[in-house]
Amino acid sequence: MTDRPTRPRARLSAEDRRRQLIGIGLRLLVSRPIHELSIDEVAAEAGISRGLLFHYFPTKRDYYIAVVQAAGQRMLKHARLPEEGAPAERLYAATLGFVSFVQRRRANYVALVRAGAGGDDRVLEVFEGIRATLTERVLEAYGASADASPMERLTARGWLAMVEEMALEADDEVDGPEELVRFLVAALERLLSPLRGPG
Amino acid sequence: MTDRPTRPRARLSAEDRRRQLIGIGLRLLVSRPIHELSIDEVAAEAGISRGLLFHYFPTKRDYYIAVVQAAGQRMLKHARLPEEGAPAERLYAATLGFVSFVQRRRANYVALVRAGAGGDDRVLEVFEGIRATLTERVLEAYGASADASPMERLTARGWLAMVEEMALEADDEVDGPEELVRFLVAALERLLSPLRGPG
Repeated sequence: MTDRPTRPRARLSAEDRRRQLIGIGLRLLVSRPIHELSIDEVAAEAGISRGLLFHYFPTKRDYYIAVVQAAGQRMLKHARLPEEGAPAERLYAATLGFVSFVQRRRANYVALVRAGAGGDDRVLEVFEGIRATLTERVLEAYGASADASPMERLTARGWLAMVEEMALEADDEVDGPEELVRFLVAALERLLSPLRGPG
Repeated sequence: MTDRPTRPRARLSAEDRRRQLIGIGLRLLVSRPIHELSIDEVAAEAGISRGLLFHYFPTKRDYYIAVVQAAGQRMLKHARLPEEGAPAERLYAATLGFVSFVQRRRANYVALVRAGAGGDDRVLEVFEGIRATLTERVLEAYGASADASPMERLTARGWLAMVEEMALEADDEVDGPEELVRFLVAALERLLSPLRGPG
């Protein structure tokens, strides 16, 4: 690549530059917790000055939040609900995507979600939005998104917390994600069914 | 109380002083997240100097961790498993204690446990110890503490995450803790029973 133009990066549009910087953050997140992300390192990797980075993200916090949002979007993409299929099949696909995503990034997921990025309100808001989206997907798989009772919605949320915990804690003694996900999907059915009866 | 001795606090033993300082921390925790606890305020409330506080707790972090541990012990006390009774009754009592504890301190519980005290490893270790203790209690209620399979243990942990999430998220639209706790205890039975069959 010796014939590479001298300053290709200078040509990036503002949108592309933001995307590039967030992409670097996501990549660095794989190897360290978010509070150890260094702005200088991100700027150096992008081949720009620290000052220019702050042109795109006014504060370090703005940058972190953009990275956390992007990580959340990535996770939601993996946990997408298929358009069609039986409820259990749709839920299985989305749950397998979620569990695989979490298990591939276990240490960082814990560092980010459990350690809560230092209790930053805007980060907690991002997490809350993600949980709400996942909850609606679970209910949607069961055709209950709009008319779910508060207890069904609460149960779907509780089940998601169980999914996260079991994905993080499962170890080699337990069967792979497929087995765990089958158990979890059946579990949701067992949790929701008594809420739908005439009682 | 004008005839109160001038320096009663100076007479506290080291053990009593530590207990007093931790107690102040626990009380302040009710109104603010742990990372906003001010050492100066704690020392002032105890009527001692900042320097003397550091005699009992070498660093601010040591003090915080002691407070977090004490908060955890307090919670475990509320979630105590009765010595006797049917599995579902013992679990009901312990779960009601846990859910009531969490719901009375909702905002602070979120600030402390969800925001993870800034991702401090020793704090996360304290949380891990608490989760492990609660998991053993759940299994013990079912007489399965020693010989639980990895999947039963994992399920008990997942169920605890569900309990925590539902306790925090339940609002007035949903019935009080007793109703929720009955649902949760029945849920655990439904989750564990397929793991015990011959399949």
